[in-house]
Amino acid sequence: MEYSSKHLEDLIERLAKLPSIGKKTALRLAFHLLKVPAEEALELARAIERVRTDVVSCEMCGNIAETQPCYLCADPSRDHAFLCVVEQPGDVIAIERSGVFHGLYHVLRGSLSPLDGIGPDDLRIRDLVTRVDEGGYREIIVATNPTAQGEATAHYLNDLLRDKVRLTRIARGLPIGADLELSDQITLARAIEGRKEI
Amino acid sequence: MEYSSKHLEDLIERLAKLPSIGKKTALRLAFHLLKVPAEEALELARAIERVRTDVVSCEMCGNIAETQPCYLCADPSRDHAFLCVVEQPGDVIAIERSGVFHGLYHVLRGSLSPLDGIGPDDLRIRDLVTRVDEGGYREIIVATNPTAQGEATAHYLNDLLRDKVRLTRIARGLPIGADLELSDQITLARAIEGRKEI
Repeated sequence: MEYSSKHLEDLIERLAKLPSIGKKTALRLAFHLLKVPAEEALELARAIERVRTDVVSCEMCGNIAETQPCYLCADPSRDHAFLCVVEQPGDVIAIERSGVFHGLYHVLRGSLSPLDGIGPDDLRIRDLVTRVDEGGYREIIVATNPTAQGEATAHYLNDLLRDKVRLTRIARGLPIGADLELSDQITLARAIEGRKEI
Repeated sequence: MEYSSKHLEDLIERLAKLPSIGKKTALRLAFHLLKVPAEEALELARAIERVRTDVVSCEMCGNIAETQPCYLCADPSRDHAFLCVVEQPGDVIAIERSGVFHGLYHVLRGSLSPLDGIGPDDLRIRDLVTRVDEGGYREIIVATNPTAQGEATAHYLNDLLRDKVRLTRIARGLPIGADLELSDQITLARAIEGRKEI
């Protein structure tokens, strides 16, 4: 036995399965959890449990929620004329943080990726079409990632919805604070293509 | 509310408290735990719980254990003439992995660090002296870290034990695969000081 405790070994193995956690970090985290006050470690265990038992997916927008519908869909002060389509719940958090969007969201829970076998039926695209048909939205903002999969998804949605509603795509260009000299050629090409009057 | 679930927010905060886990990694881990099969996430929670409820400290060597004494102290095939002193339980794992030591261990559970208020009484040094007085060891190998605190601890142990037993210190020098040109001056100085006949 390499470790002096099977429980410890089991914990290290499970931690090492998490994304961006290697074997060494897993070891460090396990020893940290052994060293801190027991209550702190047990609270983390309970937080993981709660997130899997009490958290649901909003039937309306597909975002993570504790109520049905979620607090964003239920909020009457949000602008119900605008719908922002994103890939993942984390994207909602990022856009909310930016503070410039006050409409509703639709979380696809992924992006089109034929190589991984992910087609339109694996995403919440049918729900989106139903929402658009029923919702009377003024604008659908497609905020999928500027990656091959995200762009493919945006194109697909455009084909599907452009006759029903005004569709826009978030801008792609140089990030704020970037160094033009060091930016990659595709980003720079998109920044030039997307240029605007000053 | 920035997150659409308080449970999720709580989990992210607790994950971000772990060493080497920043806010962004915590977010990523939390979403990962939401995405994997529930059983996988719940098993991690249970592994954390078990490690805090069923794991004890060996009264003999101070290592992490599930039995009293631990399986290393209880193993009759280990060479009871050699005692290796280390700072932390993780160090025992590292030395076991090297495969060259077959004696017993003594885990100090830290190193002398006056600036942090850690003195000899905060470590398992008294237990070590008792073990040395009673154990009839042929050699004590001091394998504390080659850091200021680890070296200070080694010096302290040397003062305390050199009249009782043969004390050795693990070698400090260039790590295998290192580039001489790129190694720091202190390591290189130690490597030259510690030179041996070929």
